[in-house]
Amino acid sequence: MAESNALPLVLLAEQFAKLPGIGMKSAQRLAYYVMSMTDEDASAFAAAITNAHKSVHLCSVCQNFTDKPKCPICADPRRDHTTVCVVEDPKDIAAFERTKEYKGVYHVLHGLLSPMDNISPDKLKIKELLARIEPENVKEVIMATNPTVNGEATAIYISRLLKPLGVKVTRLAFGLPVGGVLEYADEVTLYKALENRNEI
Amino acid sequence: MAESNALPLVLLAEQFAKLPGIGMKSAQRLAYYVMSMTDEDASAFAAAITNAHKSVHLCSVCQNFTDKPKCPICADPRRDHTTVCVVEDPKDIAAFERTKEYKGVYHVLHGLLSPMDNISPDKLKIKELLARIEPENVKEVIMATNPTVNGEATAIYISRLLKPLGVKVTRLAFGLPVGGVLEYADEVTLYKALENRNEI
Repeated sequence: MAESNALPLVLLAEQFAKLPGIGMKSAQRLAYYVMSMTDEDASAFAAAITNAHKSVHLCSVCQNFTDKPKCPICADPRRDHTTVCVVEDPKDIAAFERTKEYKGVYHVLHGLLSPMDNISPDKLKIKELLARIEPENVKEVIMATNPTVNGEATAIYISRLLKPLGVKVTRLAFGLPVGGVLEYADEVTLYKALENRNEI
Repeated sequence: MAESNALPLVLLAEQFAKLPGIGMKSAQRLAYYVMSMTDEDASAFAAAITNAHKSVHLCSVCQNFTDKPKCPICADPRRDHTTVCVVEDPKDIAAFERTKEYKGVYHVLHGLLSPMDNISPDKLKIKELLARIEPENVKEVIMATNPTVNGEATAIYISRLLKPLGVKVTRLAFGLPVGGVLEYADEVTLYKALENRNEI
């Protein structure tokens, strides 16, 4: 931003530029936009940041974001608490909930194992997962990490910790995406689809 | 965002989604990112919004954003205060300043005339421009609005108000962009470049 600009405006743009996927140009545009907001709207925006950051914390059971001691899913007695779907990120829960089919509960790892980025098992919410197994009588753990190298490694690592506890550990099925076109499927996906073929 | 999410997180995402160019998906991603910030960083972000919105206002002379009574350009005695470059938006000033060649001052209209959007002359900072002419002994006004229908209309409207005051009114030159390729020039630009050709 030109040095002729007001300093608070420059500082605000720098704050926006820290957000993921927002470059300096967009950050400046957003900062200018804040200038055009009414006093009430600007205050509401600032308050929403402070409020969300203050009142939202991790669910004591599944480690998802919540503003209650337990998140609504963990607190729901109609959900099947003996089936736990393990995901990398809170965003993934929203994806499963959209299917409206899954009735179990979740566990959020808040990351994946990654030796390259120095993310070791103690940086993930793995011990919180192990601590749930016995008291909640967990029967099945579904490893729902992404089908990437780190996702696979994390799924295998955790399954090895869980199996001695007598828990059934499953992995999401890999294959052709529904509505996809064979021609555009990559070879690994096609191989997985072939390998996991079902009788019809 | 799934209804299972914490309400303050949903409200924060809604705030982000109000910003220009940020859809609901990006807004959710940004809200999740705020969760991962440290307490200090989240407070600094919220404070930057409040502070910029509170302390930044319009320069009493040129209507650019500033946190002082007069912006640094209007307050600079080395600038030529008899030449005023009229722009649509504060962002445009940064573009001119980057050329490092313009030594005059600016005037920000904060919009363009647009009958379609119900933007009439009284919604723009036109009377503030007219009020500067005599006391500041303005000799030339450069109409630097964009080469669009509304930009042209606004330039012509304002020039008609200024000419009776004995001010020289000029318009930016239109032609080929420097470094551009003839092949890709649109026909209007090419026509303007031909029309405004100079002897070499």
